[in-house]
Amino acid sequence: MVKYPNGSSAVFFKSANESELRKKYNHRKNIDFSDRGMNLEQMINESNKYYRIKEIAVVHKKPTPIQIVKVDYPKRSRAVIKEAYFRQESTTDYNGVYDGYYLDFEAKETKNKTNFPLKNFHEHQIVHLAECLKQKGICFTIIGFTSLNRYFATPANRIVKAWWKKDRSSLTLKEIKDWSVEIESSFQPTLPYLKAVDQFIADRKANNGR
Amino acid sequence: MVKYPNGSSAVFFKSANESELRKKYNHRKNIDFSDRGMNLEQMINESNKYYRIKEIAVVHKKPTPIQIVKVDYPKRSRAVIKEAYFRQESTTDYNGVYDGYYLDFEAKETKNKTNFPLKNFHEHQIVHLAECLKQKGICFTIIGFTSLNRYFATPANRIVKAWWKKDRSSLTLKEIKDWSVEIESSFQPTLPYLKAVDQFIADRKANNGR
Repeated sequence: MVKYPNGSSAVFFKSANESELRKKYNHRKNIDFSDRGMNLEQMINESNKYYRIKEIAVVHKKPTPIQIVKVDYPKRSRAVIKEAYFRQESTTDYNGVYDGYYLDFEAKETKNKTNFPLKNFHEHQIVHLAECLKQKGICFTIIGFTSLNRYFATPANRIVKAWWKKDRSSLTLKEIKDWSVEIESSFQPTLPYLKAVDQFIADRKANNGR
Repeated sequence: MVKYPNGSSAVFFKSANESELRKKYNHRKNIDFSDRGMNLEQMINESNKYYRIKEIAVVHKKPTPIQIVKVDYPKRSRAVIKEAYFRQESTTDYNGVYDGYYLDFEAKETKNKTNFPLKNFHEHQIVHLAECLKQKGICFTIIGFTSLNRYFATPANRIVKAWWKKDRSSLTLKEIKDWSVEIESSFQPTLPYLKAVDQFIADRKANNGR
């Protein structure tokens, strides 16, 4: 299997040659892109754009870290990277600010209908979420059950705790439902995840008054 | 002049071939790297590492966004990016969380001893800082006068306002001193910029009680 550093293939398809590239890689590796985070990622990116334009929140997807080894500077045209490698990431994919609150989250999709495999989260993401929780960030995950068209925002402390348990390889849909705020996909924004964030903020205020 | 997307060359020197690459580019383009943000960037990265290990704050430098066009998958070795381009950035270089506060900042160096040219900040950085200010983030810049070994954390609203003024091409050292909290470089962390952040938070509390 091709190892994309963030479990997502989206980074490959931002170029002008998008469809060509996608055809090529689909052909070559026989990957089904529908379960590789593309759709959920696009929904989140569009929602972030909407929130930013409406001045509701500023959240960006972090670029994939690349180690550049060789760059050419052709005359009269822009620099071309000729050799580079994917680097290990050290954070989640998304962070930003919403009404003074620091937001930090990771998004994952599964085609599975009854449970979510915990191996979809990588250790660096779990560690980063735990670090940000300690700093009082609003930290969560967005888990998409694509076959069911259902999306859940789950507080990161639940995910972090479950991930470190040795006897656990997945979360059931029921557990996720119980722990999460469900996000109904809509038109604008596509995935209004800030409704879930509002709930997390309200829960926090109810618990400790801040 | 070589256009690095974030005005920094640091991304090039994270590889194993660091010194070799540096020699090569120095030779080829005759760039003096000492004024390209390397030192300040290193100081900030080291400080961020210190703050993270000590569980004081979680701040990361964002990777440079790259548009990947061609990737090779050699058998039995990791993927090699064979063609890629620098993409336009849309944020500042640093953001993170500190005791519940969202931090966002850009760092720039100058060899100049009396003033700081505003063209060192790019429009996308200014726009992003303004957007994050509206969301009540703690937003600032770190300006390093390397010839003087002096570093200033300046609230972003000052920089944003000055940047948009047509009749302004630079800030004087005196203006920066008046507007900023000076950061004394030290041992651990190298650049204790959170002291300035504490001041910004105290000022904000004094102004609006939050």
